[in-house]
Amino acid sequence: MLTYRNLDRTGAWKKLRNTSPFDVTRLSEDRISTMQTSLAAGITYSWAAAPVDQSVIAVLAELATEQQLVDKYRALLDGAVMNTGEGRMVLHHLLRGQPGSVVVHQGRDQREFYREQQQRFSRFAEAVLDGTEKGATGKPFTTVVQIGIGGSDLGPRALYLALNEWVRAQGIEPRLEAKFISNVDPDDAAAVLSGVDLETTLFVLVSKSGTTQETLTNEQFVKELAARHAPGLDLRKNTVAVTSETSPLASGGGYRESFFIDDYIGGRYSATSAVGGVILSLAFGPGVFQRVLEGAHEADLAAMNPDLLANASLLDALIGVYERNTLGMATTAILPYSQALSRFPAHLQQLDMESNGKRVNRDGEPVEYETGPIVFGEPGTNGQHSFYQLLHQGTTTIPLQFIGFRRSQIGQDTAFEGSTSQVKLNANLAAQIVAFARGRHHENGNKHFPGGRPSTLLVGEQLTPEAAGALLAHYENKVMFQGLTWNVNSFDQEGVQLGKILTKELLTGSPGEELTVYASLLGIDKKI
Amino acid sequence: MLTYRNLDRTGAWKKLRNTSPFDVTRLSEDRISTMQTSLAAGITYSWAAAPVDQSVIAVLAELATEQQLVDKYRALLDGAVMNTGEGRMVLHHLLRGQPGSVVVHQGRDQREFYREQQQRFSRFAEAVLDGTEKGATGKPFTTVVQIGIGGSDLGPRALYLALNEWVRAQGIEPRLEAKFISNVDPDDAAAVLSGVDLETTLFVLVSKSGTTQETLTNEQFVKELAARHAPGLDLRKNTVAVTSETSPLASGGGYRESFFIDDYIGGRYSATSAVGGVILSLAFGPGVFQRVLEGAHEADLAAMNPDLLANASLLDALIGVYERNTLGMATTAILPYSQALSRFPAHLQQLDMESNGKRVNRDGEPVEYETGPIVFGEPGTNGQHSFYQLLHQGTTTIPLQFIGFRRSQIGQDTAFEGSTSQVKLNANLAAQIVAFARGRHHENGNKHFPGGRPSTLLVGEQLTPEAAGALLAHYENKVMFQGLTWNVNSFDQEGVQLGKILTKELLTGSPGEELTVYASLLGIDKKI
Repeated sequence: MLTYRNLDRTGAWKKLRNTSPFDVTRLSEDRISTMQTSLAAGITYSWAAAPVDQSVIAVLAELATEQQLVDKYRALLDGAVMNTGEGRMVLHHLLRGQPGSVVVHQGRDQREFYREQQQRFSRFAEAVLDGTEKGATGKPFTTVVQIGIGGSDLGPRALYLALNEWVRAQGIEPRLEAKFISNVDPDDAAAVLSGVDLETTLFVLVSKSGTTQETLTNEQFVKELAARHAPGLDLRKNTVAVTSETSPLASGGGYRESFFIDDYIGGRYSATSAVGGVILSLAFGPGVFQRVLEGAHEADLAAMNPDLLANASLLDALIGVYERNTLGMATTAILPYSQALSRFPAHLQQLDMESNGKRVNRDGEPVEYETGPIVFGEPGTNGQHSFYQLLHQGTTTIPLQFIGFRRSQIGQDTAFEGSTSQVKLNANLAAQIVAFARGRHHENGNKHFPGGRPSTLLVGEQLTPEAAGALLAHYENKVMFQGLTWNVNSFDQEGVQLGKILTKELLTGSPGEELTVYASLLGIDKKI
Repeated sequence: MLTYRNLDRTGAWKKLRNTSPFDVTRLSEDRISTMQTSLAAGITYSWAAAPVDQSVIAVLAELATEQQLVDKYRALLDGAVMNTGEGRMVLHHLLRGQPGSVVVHQGRDQREFYREQQQRFSRFAEAVLDGTEKGATGKPFTTVVQIGIGGSDLGPRALYLALNEWVRAQGIEPRLEAKFISNVDPDDAAAVLSGVDLETTLFVLVSKSGTTQETLTNEQFVKELAARHAPGLDLRKNTVAVTSETSPLASGGGYRESFFIDDYIGGRYSATSAVGGVILSLAFGPGVFQRVLEGAHEADLAAMNPDLLANASLLDALIGVYERNTLGMATTAILPYSQALSRFPAHLQQLDMESNGKRVNRDGEPVEYETGPIVFGEPGTNGQHSFYQLLHQGTTTIPLQFIGFRRSQIGQDTAFEGSTSQVKLNANLAAQIVAFARGRHHENGNKHFPGGRPSTLLVGEQLTPEAAGALLAHYENKVMFQGLTWNVNSFDQEGVQLGKILTKELLTGSPGEELTVYASLLGIDKKI
């Protein structure tokens, strides 16, 4: 029997207020050696430098039990309606495996449906890559351009960047070059398409609803570009759609192919569906994408473990809740020491802030505690030369999550002053964790480091497809566990609606006074 | 007579606590029409949706007077030692003009020195672009690759991306293609250089001290790449240095040319020096870079106005202080509705967080109030489909700064459903400001928007070189005014030192226990 209650109605809530956080200036060798747990795909989660000791962990374990976090996750896997506002199941885990029961909906085995779509786009990608499927004018495809925004852009783009150099270093061929258009700013599409040959480009048009304004506008942009520069080209034959079966794109578009997702795959949780799978299979080959799914599935299984200390995603989630609610830290930073993860923080911004940036609980009632944190980040070592000053010596404490890998992706390296770049990269990472935690006394206040800045670390052997999939799923599951702890619905996004409504009011000629004046200031009053 | 005092020792401090913020749900046509002031280069600053009314503005004006903000800025321009910790003047304004007195240092007119360097690299760029200056093997240069990190990377890169499509749309030729290497992660350099012809590539090696670990390591990486792939190539002849006159790079490198900055140009304030000027002059032509300087200079002059309501940078700064200290808002978001500004928030992260992320005042004594905020951002409309959910309906209020332009850069556009992309872009921007401020009631708590989320807007005609320069200088001056208000030194960065020290301890074999265990976890114990 699952019971949903607000965080401040749990017994653990008050107990947490009475705990003392672990003072991370006391970070020790012993903590580092023992406070680790395995995530998946060879990735280890280290919480030695987090502000929790055994007594805090014990209360967090109580909280996990009281909020039935693993049981609710299992229910989600089994097809419970976890997206309460929209009355929907949440099934993205089925994209990569079957961690729970078979979920049958309207006579359809959902796992089979997703697998069938994966098989369809895998075969399609193989045919494009071996030249069987050619462009409308008979030329083989060389380039794939995804048109999508939000979840149809950030996750797939982050994964593409995460693995592009790894795939290149492995010598995997054949493959298409991939590009992405997202913004309705016309300069975005114009810039991305400036060097592209439309005849050899396959467009992937991604919109679950089939009505996303930016995406349809950018499709139109491409159509007009084609009409000018390749007037004989039937662009629809160079376009595939990724959408839901009932959307306008599925039926009326006349596209070469349509691949499907459904209402149970939220945009920000869709990177392992056709939304990410089509372009990644074309760019890397379907085998690489399959390995991403396997890494994600392994992390999904690991998140089912009821033992808090053996469940990295659950532990990471609850340490985050402790920092957010008990310690009052509103922001968190994601700091990958891997250039390939340069856009991973942007994906996590959406994943986390859109999922848990909520002021009401799953029943629509306002909550009286803080929910999802603000997330930002840039790759190390770049961040060290940028915003780390504030992290070390600012007046606001920001919990940090580092990500590192023992080996580089490309394997080209250089020794300079006695160490390779990869060793320097990871030496910097180790140094930062210790510097943030322990600080260092200095008589000069300006050079004094108070320390006490908490962090956690995810460390893997190499950023492989499995590791990328495991990281992706780890954060999905972490965000889910946090949402369940806060008793919010992590799977809708009603907060994006009002902006859409007002935009429509402005564009269709019925705006309020304030909108009208801003429109004038922005130079669009004459053009509407 | 200038007096430096902590913010909480001012008379305005207590008065601010007794003000009531303006409730931005009451945003009105009248506020929008009147609460605007001109910045520079055709950019207008609108604070209609900020949480301030006339009574708050009056106290902020008192604060500006009490903290002598404009007088201190004038002193800075005249060569006062404003970087107290390091005992240095702060002279980046002289890179683009002479807003104050002539500053003579050790017999040298500093403005003349910076202008001379600009003339040197302008002539050099002209000669590269017209083919007079060729690569070591006699081929004309086609590509320029900057090797630098932090301030030697973020500002120049942000400006390059800001103007690349504008330059292309203008048909400006000849020009080099520009790339950037920053991270010590070996995969960064390997990826950037994968398609580059070393014989026709000019490297710009940027390090003021000439000792930056990442930058020297990446230079070594390029040298080894050249030794393998172009064994006859004397890479030093394809490299220019940007450094200080006394650095090891200036004398011993044997580079083709060296262009100089000095100790009075901080890294994060160096985009308008040779640090940004060399690569931008090669990529866009020196004339475009000159126009960036002119826009910046215009903003520098505008910041000298003692009338708060006619000084956009000062007003923006003090509204930020009010939000940070009186209203307790720790984070702020920069939301450019312009894809060309995609990396501008990353530059501002460094500029703001490294400058004002300080816990001690300019004399090294701890302050007892909050200082610099956390800054993050992504371009609209992308952010709308990502983290705006939290901004609209999260439990933490984040002041927003929007940036928009009436015209696109490229001018290619498409009409779809009755409006162009540019109109849609700006309609979204207008809609978001109003949605955040006013909110909208809904019976369903999940669909209810409380509003009251403050924002400001910078709006220009087009993102030209002048506008980019003005924006850059606006934020430099805003951050300076905030630092002066908080009485911190915005021009040093001692907080980056401890990480460097511990990295060195680890790499040279004398680490503490905690470092040793993390090194082992990160797989580098065997390799040091």
